Amino acid sequence: MKIAVLGTGMVGDTIGSRLIELGHEVKMGSRTADNEKARAFVAKHERNASAGTFADAAAFGEIIFNCTAGAASVDALKMAGEANVAGKIAVDIANPLDFSNGMPPSLIPALSNTHSLGEEIQKTFPATKVVKTLNTMWCGLMVNPAMVGGGDHTNFICGNDAEAKQQVKALLNEFGWKNENILDLGDISSARGTEAVLPVWLRIWNATQNGAFNFKVVS
Amino acid sequence: MKIAVLGTGMVGDTIGSRLIELGHEVKMGSRTADNEKARAFVAKHERNASAGTFADAAAFGEIIFNCTAGAASVDALKMAGEANVAGKIAVDIANPLDFSNGMPPSLIPALSNTHSLGEEIQKTFPATKVVKTLNTMWCGLMVNPAMVGGGDHTNFICGNDAEAKQQVKALLNEFGWKNENILDLGDISSARGTEAVLPVWLRIWNATQNGAFNFKVVS
Repeated sequence: MKIAVLGTGMVGDTIGSRLIELGHEVKMGSRTADNEKARAFVAKHERNASAGTFADAAAFGEIIFNCTAGAASVDALKMAGEANVAGKIAVDIANPLDFSNGMPPSLIPALSNTHSLGEEIQKTFPATKVVKTLNTMWCGLMVNPAMVGGGDHTNFICGNDAEAKQQVKALLNEFGWKNENILDLGDISSARGTEAVLPVWLRIWNATQNGAFNFKVVS
Repeated sequence: MKIAVLGTGMVGDTIGSRLIELGHEVKMGSRTADNEKARAFVAKHERNASAGTFADAAAFGEIIFNCTAGAASVDALKMAGEANVAGKIAVDIANPLDFSNGMPPSLIPALSNTHSLGEEIQKTFPATKVVKTLNTMWCGLMVNPAMVGGGDHTNFICGNDAEAKQQVKALLNEFGWKNENILDLGDISSARGTEAVLPVWLRIWNATQNGAFNFKVVS
């Protein structure tokens, strides 16, 4: 599958590299066509990796992973161009972190509590099928859940389009997620819940000095 | 031990009943001395249960459990009286839920994200040792963790006073919590993290139609 990865940070690199390992073709998108980290991403893969602007990547991808910083995600998708994202699935992995109050970050007030980044993206691009998932864990675990607890921990998913969620689940299965560990929380408004996991996630990370953990819903 | 339970709802009743079962003496406090639910609580226990105003209960307790609704907690503690809570441990189980935007509730803006109910209580009563714990799960599990997953799931704790946290951990042990499942997140500002669990908790509850679940940190 041709996949766009928007964002050149650790999350974009990890997601893009895993998708290539699984046989997909990835175009990494960034603000400019000659982004240094995107060039490094392309250089380290023998095949199936390319780079370009957000618009280049979105035009290329049959499905789009949003791996940009949450504060910049809506702008990045606007640069990608509404026509390039319309009708496609956008897998939103970003979190609306606000670093303006020091560490650990809080959530951007306008994109939390009674709203969310996932909803804001869906509202801004109504013809795009936004699926929120994977945003509650460190990127190493996103693409390799077996790294801890035998993979037996929970990944949340939400979005308005049931068929889009099914397609994303199939990709999650490729990453190693078992269906019984993927918990569908309903429509995209549940991003208010999953994005709000970050404040406790960051404090667990700080207390344990280990980011390679995830939550398992035990019932 | 003589323990005050502030609040006559399901959480207060569950915590108070379990404490009595464990041999403690409980006085349930409410806004008025003749609260109907507090009377029912007293009536169903053969011994060690009594009721009164918030002030009566706080004066009685060597340790105080705040089981009031989060929006009313600071006022309840003010009614309890600063002199009655000074120098004591206040175990804060409440969450600052805001029902004004419909269901599921969001968090009270002034008590979330860059602040928390736990911190507000600590700030309002600086001579009280506020310990936040148990607020991330259904009350049935608070006092009986073995009900799911053999008790192997995570209860967070935070607060500024290390000795107070140790005393609360000893009570948690009585409830059935093993030390390896009690995760200390540091000072009371970590209440910003644990109170922010509620938005995803409520959505998991809605999606699964089962409130008898908890999170386990898997690493």
